[in-house]
Amino acid sequence: MKSIKIGLLGLGNVGYGTFSVLKRNQEEIKRRAGRGIEVVAVAVRDVARAEALVAGACKVVNDPHLIVNDPEIDIVVELIGGYDLSKTLVMQAIANGKHVVTANKALLAVHGNEIFAAAQDKGVMVAFEAAVAGGIPIIKALREGLTANRIEWIAGIINGTTNFILSEMRDKGLDFATVLKQAQELGYAEADPTFDIEGVDAAHKATIMSAIAFGIPVQFDKAYVEGISNLNAVDIRYAEQLGYRIKLLGITKRATVNGVEGIELRVHPTLIPAKRLIANVEGAMNAVLVHGDAVGASLYSGRGAGAEPTASSVIADLVDITRLATADPEHRVPHLAFQPNAMTDIAILPMSEITTSYYLRMHVADQPGVLADLTRILAERSISIDAMLQKEPAEGETHTDIIMLTHQTQEKNVTAAIEKMEALNSVVGTVTKIRLENLS
Amino acid sequence: MKSIKIGLLGLGNVGYGTFSVLKRNQEEIKRRAGRGIEVVAVAVRDVARAEALVAGACKVVNDPHLIVNDPEIDIVVELIGGYDLSKTLVMQAIANGKHVVTANKALLAVHGNEIFAAAQDKGVMVAFEAAVAGGIPIIKALREGLTANRIEWIAGIINGTTNFILSEMRDKGLDFATVLKQAQELGYAEADPTFDIEGVDAAHKATIMSAIAFGIPVQFDKAYVEGISNLNAVDIRYAEQLGYRIKLLGITKRATVNGVEGIELRVHPTLIPAKRLIANVEGAMNAVLVHGDAVGASLYSGRGAGAEPTASSVIADLVDITRLATADPEHRVPHLAFQPNAMTDIAILPMSEITTSYYLRMHVADQPGVLADLTRILAERSISIDAMLQKEPAEGETHTDIIMLTHQTQEKNVTAAIEKMEALNSVVGTVTKIRLENLS
Repeated sequence: MKSIKIGLLGLGNVGYGTFSVLKRNQEEIKRRAGRGIEVVAVAVRDVARAEALVAGACKVVNDPHLIVNDPEIDIVVELIGGYDLSKTLVMQAIANGKHVVTANKALLAVHGNEIFAAAQDKGVMVAFEAAVAGGIPIIKALREGLTANRIEWIAGIINGTTNFILSEMRDKGLDFATVLKQAQELGYAEADPTFDIEGVDAAHKATIMSAIAFGIPVQFDKAYVEGISNLNAVDIRYAEQLGYRIKLLGITKRATVNGVEGIELRVHPTLIPAKRLIANVEGAMNAVLVHGDAVGASLYSGRGAGAEPTASSVIADLVDITRLATADPEHRVPHLAFQPNAMTDIAILPMSEITTSYYLRMHVADQPGVLADLTRILAERSISIDAMLQKEPAEGETHTDIIMLTHQTQEKNVTAAIEKMEALNSVVGTVTKIRLENLS
Repeated sequence: MKSIKIGLLGLGNVGYGTFSVLKRNQEEIKRRAGRGIEVVAVAVRDVARAEALVAGACKVVNDPHLIVNDPEIDIVVELIGGYDLSKTLVMQAIANGKHVVTANKALLAVHGNEIFAAAQDKGVMVAFEAAVAGGIPIIKALREGLTANRIEWIAGIINGTTNFILSEMRDKGLDFATVLKQAQELGYAEADPTFDIEGVDAAHKATIMSAIAFGIPVQFDKAYVEGISNLNAVDIRYAEQLGYRIKLLGITKRATVNGVEGIELRVHPTLIPAKRLIANVEGAMNAVLVHGDAVGASLYSGRGAGAEPTASSVIADLVDITRLATADPEHRVPHLAFQPNAMTDIAILPMSEITTSYYLRMHVADQPGVLADLTRILAERSISIDAMLQKEPAEGETHTDIIMLTHQTQEKNVTAAIEKMEALNSVVGTVTKIRLENLS
């Protein structure tokens, strides 16, 4: 089957991420989507730079209208940002009957109602998973995963720049201006950081989530927006002493005031109990906590920005559209994610062949040479030790516990080493083995 | 438009949860799905009990074959569990051209390949969001949200019973047998807890995720399964001293052994660094950490069991199927989650009307009566104090900081109180106000 043809508007950070991931994972994506997804053209300001990046893989044009008017192109991916040119291009793409994928939260928070109405009339999709919380599939969770629920509230860390700054302020006891400067040097904050630090970006995203959660139009102009630029380091310390962390949250919730139902929509620094999982989402990570009446609270966290995390969401939207345009309705999403004729037969490994780290506990005689014997047995099987804990024997005891954490090795090596260890006279009973994963 | 007709097999915990949530949120769900979703019949062993529960809202039958063979029914929801009768009924429903929704991980982990092939042939869907991690939409995230990625590994806390037991063992320093007994009394563990504590339930779920992540058939017989019944309290303590927590993880990952690609699929107690977010998922909660090459690590957490969390996923599947059977392909999922003709006009509240708690910091003269003035001003506006922190004045200083955390109140009350506080001679400069959310 002929591949789906994509036109990219913009080949910056996210645009090039999208181009790269589509290329690198093209087989994997095709096995899932049922047909190939191919970038056929990109529109950029700097044609020479883009031509070097795409290396002949697709057309490069300067005029973005050439993309939205190109009859060959099925889906337009808008990654140029802003409200004006992007709106003109998106509306033109819709008018031309093309599906649109966009990461542009500002555009949707401000002009979303008009854009979605046009798409509805024209029978095309405007998909925007990448517009909120980067790589986290939160739009899908809200629109499809939690449809059983009356959503009660959403609270999200939905701006990585401010979360990075707040984490650093707390961690290192620094003030806002110092950390902002560092963040700019590290590339976590833009040269003009206003949209991030004043909460505007978070409010765009909260506005979109509010509409989806409660079935209301997008209303960015009604959002309360307060950033972190006036936040004092001393308040972060006092909050901590009281058991709280300060996060910039985007919050939207149902509220009843004087018997009338309303919606709260607000972005501001917020104290939250330090023991909540979301309070421990640090650095540039994002997280969204959703409370539904049936499911209770559920949390979605991951990278909220960056080239490939954002590309992950852009491409998920491309696959969604491709599946709709390709499959029988009943098999839009294959049961096991990959098309039935595109399964592989990679074997499940026997346990002896798996690789991980290990916690080993030995109960041993408190006598010279024991540790030497144990470490020799490990060394002979090329198992190296990452950490060790040796307890003093209890009062009147002649034996004690030794705990070792190993670096990664194959299970069969550890099994063989344990057999040798248990054969030592100095080792009492069996060696306790628990596997260890760093999950990094 | 005529509603979609559902037949429920089983009206236990999850079955009744599904029935209740569909009824309670019927308007909300209809606004999202585009048409009503109606339970027309349930099949149960105890007809009298079920008739009391459904109170005339639908037919109650004793023979489940009456449901799978009923031409009026569009979707069969299988919630009876087990491998035998459930398989017969699911296969018969498929043969009759009905879509199936199931929460039965055991059935799918063991007979999934046969069931999905039959559904594919017949052009029906077998949906199973509720089979893995209860209310967390992890199947949707893996099958649709992360399609751009080459999935590298998944590690999940996917059994609430064992996570509850491990959390209690660590928290209270108790041994396995003691905590299991408590868990049984609290209803967190079944009378026969074998499937949970020996890791079988987690392995069923890991098997399903493994197939979806890597495009391989379900292969429960190849999974390595080790539970927590032999876990010693002393190892939980030693692990903690070394900076780790022990969780029962379901793990599946790509591995290359001697140049050949393979898949690891294993369930066992695992040490993980205590600082990881997933290490802090406690009690009966579930969480799944997915690592994809583009998105990096993303975490999905929430309630993994229970009547309504599981019903949340069952109903999400029902809405998915309903949307496919109802909408134009291009508008399967409405842009803003609700059908365009079913939006509401609930107003966004002005900030003065919102309700939350507050952190207030005042810089005050260290003299008698100041605290009395401040607390009187709050009391006059019915703002009650939850916690307070008063710092000693620094050496040689005549002023100090007072911090108060309030209970919930409307913003306008706090604004008015702050105005009064700032007018006091004893209060220097402005009062710092930061909002506080408990997120519970």
